[in-house]
Amino acid sequence: MGYDWISFTTDYGLSDGFVAACHGVIARFAPGVRMIDVTHAVPPQRLRWGAAVLAQTVPYLPPSVHLAVVDPGVGTDRRPIVVVTDAGVLVGPDNGLLRPAAEALGGVRSAYLLAAPDYRLSTVSATFHGRDIFAPAAAHLAVGVAPERFGPPIDPDSLARLRAPEIDALPGELSSEVLTVDRFGNIQLAATATDLAAAGLRRGDHVTIRAEGAVVPATVAHTFADVRSGELLVVIDSADHVAVALNGGSAVERLGEADRLSVARRR
Amino acid sequence: MGYDWISFTTDYGLSDGFVAACHGVIARFAPGVRMIDVTHAVPPQRLRWGAAVLAQTVPYLPPSVHLAVVDPGVGTDRRPIVVVTDAGVLVGPDNGLLRPAAEALGGVRSAYLLAAPDYRLSTVSATFHGRDIFAPAAAHLAVGVAPERFGPPIDPDSLARLRAPEIDALPGELSSEVLTVDRFGNIQLAATATDLAAAGLRRGDHVTIRAEGAVVPATVAHTFADVRSGELLVVIDSADHVAVALNGGSAVERLGEADRLSVARRR
Amino acid sequence: MGYDWISFTTDYGLSDGFVAACHGVIARFAPGVRMIDVTHAVPPQRLRWGAAVLAQTVPYLPPSVHLAVVDPGVGTDRRPIVVVTDAGVLVGPDNGLLRPAAEALGGVRSAYLLAAPDYRLSTVSATFHGRDIFAPAAAHLAVGVAPERFGPPIDPDSLARLRAPEIDALPGELSSEVLTVDRFGNIQLAATATDLAAAGLRRGDHVTIRAEGAVVPATVAHTFADVRSGELLVVIDSADHVAVALNGGSAVERLGEADRLSVARRR
Repeated sequence: MGYDWISFTTDYGLSDGFVAACHGVIARFAPGVRMIDVTHAVPPQRLRWGAAVLAQTVPYLPPSVHLAVVDPGVGTDRRPIVVVTDAGVLVGPDNGLLRPAAEALGGVRSAYLLAAPDYRLSTVSATFHGRDIFAPAAAHLAVGVAPERFGPPIDPDSLARLRAPEIDALPGELSSEVLTVDRFGNIQLAATATDLAAAGLRRGDHVTIRAEGAVVPATVAHTFADVRSGELLVVIDSADHVAVALNGGSAVERLGEADRLSVARRR
Repeated sequence: MGYDWISFTTDYGLSDGFVAACHGVIARFAPGVRMIDVTHAVPPQRLRWGAAVLAQTVPYLPPSVHLAVVDPGVGTDRRPIVVVTDAGVLVGPDNGLLRPAAEALGGVRSAYLLAAPDYRLSTVSATFHGRDIFAPAAAHLAVGVAPERFGPPIDPDSLARLRAPEIDALPGELSSEVLTVDRFGNIQLAATATDLAAAGLRRGDHVTIRAEGAVVPATVAHTFADVRSGELLVVIDSADHVAVALNGGSAVERLGEADRLSVARRR
Repeated sequence: MGYDWISFTTDYGLSDGFVAACHGVIARFAPGVRMIDVTHAVPPQRLRWGAAVLAQTVPYLPPSVHLAVVDPGVGTDRRPIVVVTDAGVLVGPDNGLLRPAAEALGGVRSAYLLAAPDYRLSTVSATFHGRDIFAPAAAHLAVGVAPERFGPPIDPDSLARLRAPEIDALPGELSSEVLTVDRFGNIQLAATATDLAAAGLRRGDHVTIRAEGAVVPATVAHTFADVRSGELLVVIDSADHVAVALNGGSAVERLGEADRLSVARRR
């Protein structure tokens, strides 16, 4: 029992010692476990962003305890939880962050409150539950402490959920919330390949992208090389989401940051 | 003897190969040792900042060699040193960087000059002692080379110290230098919980914060949720320092960057 | 056979799950291997920059599979390759990125196409060959799969090369392309110590630096402390390149970003 790996996702950034303190706590309780840092650069307190990155990454990780902390409600009564799936366990705050990753791992089988004082640091601060509650829990899960030892079971239906993203697939037009923007400036939509197909948009279609004030032509494509340098393309990205990219540049610089975006076939 | 872990703190950043070259040097001399990167984003050459992050993190790390390099004096005659404490050893330049962490680990028991050529790279560059002197020293300490083998002992009283931060606790008013600003924009003061108590400031007190030109109301609180979204709070942070935070936002964006800051009870 | 270590260099950044997905793929195929992240902050698609950082770092790493992905041509017909040297193997796109590191490791002995479907993920995306082709290849190489098992041999002379950097060493004047700028604002030139000597410039020489519009005096020096705080110096850096630095500050802030730069002896 237990896990050889802990994955670790936060909005802590890497400029402080926060991530290292958690690594240290884990090293003390579970010296043999190995860490994979998913990212610590989730924009501060952006739950939906963190949830998306985590859910898109976990399918590629080995069986792990997935420790994830984006926690605007630290110090309130939001519950600290462990979520059990068929393909790994997740540890973090009950605020919707863990759910999409749990679905990607086969769905929530059970969940428990992190309540047992034995599996926390002896002093729990008001603002750093990652170090004081979540990291110790992840370490103990990795060394084989059973999830039900941490506290009472939680009805999976009672777990917090993020609002479902708004996606509208009309004939010839797909409108969707933006999910993330990556380092290259590629804009990832909540919409997936299925939604693009539902809107009847196909590779080779010439489309118009509307985002805030911007109205820009683009092409539905398979990869960057399908359009000329400096042109926008709509692709299915490596996580099976619809993304808007710019060959040889940054789509987000061209289009501006927007919460939602539409792609419509040009007549 | 020796250590299973090396912690690593620098101002090198992660955009170059500097950190990796040090990891590589360590891997070659001490292949079994494991690394915990504390941070490599100390603002360039900010000794006090680096010292604070290191001192606040080491209590949570396993027994380690703590390798730390913020080294504005590289190439001058500042001494390369190893500092021995009851709970680990520290390696780095003798410029005050290591001292607060040494205190956090129980105090300096002894110190030695890093002089022995056997424990350096065969060529030592003028500007990258992290790779050429400090990383090899850390690796050799980890595999069990005794600190006294590196060079002559140094009188602990002769070790460089950072100027003590200015903290003034008057009745109803606490004034302090700023120590660090974290990724969330929380402003950490050099003042601790003890100083806040010495100023007679208590949870629930309504206060005024003065920083550079800014004069802004705040509340002494236990955690973020004690004030409304968009309001400033004064808290004891997870390192037992006084910090100024903004619920749902960034205190440093509201107050501006300042070297010092005062918190005074409102009449 | 095989390797205990994989080094990893990309322009993926750390704000997404891209790097972690590659770590995860490696952990699944080669659970015992250990990773050294060289950098993931190569400026997007800057091949020359990535090639320079990698080539300057590999000499300090243990024997490794060097996985490097800066891949503006992903999705085109640029070849995925493994390059064999006497001191390690390199995996990545055939676009010139790997070549300088291969030279630093003793030169290309042989190269092979990464073609075998057994050593890729079962589904290969159009835009993320790091995860789907290169990371699995690196993992299989680490556990001992021979390079020739991945696909047909490639003539080393047919491997892509980056254009050689323009360096002009005239009597008393050295002109060179800029290679990288580090976190401290030090400007590293393509020119090396040999080029500086060829121009007859020596330690102690008073020189003028010209970069874009800027014309600024400097001194050829051994280390920062050889000039006063706030003054520019020309040094041989820790990778044996000529670099322009500012004692106590950032040379790139003083001189501005430029593609090339000249250093001429003052009369």
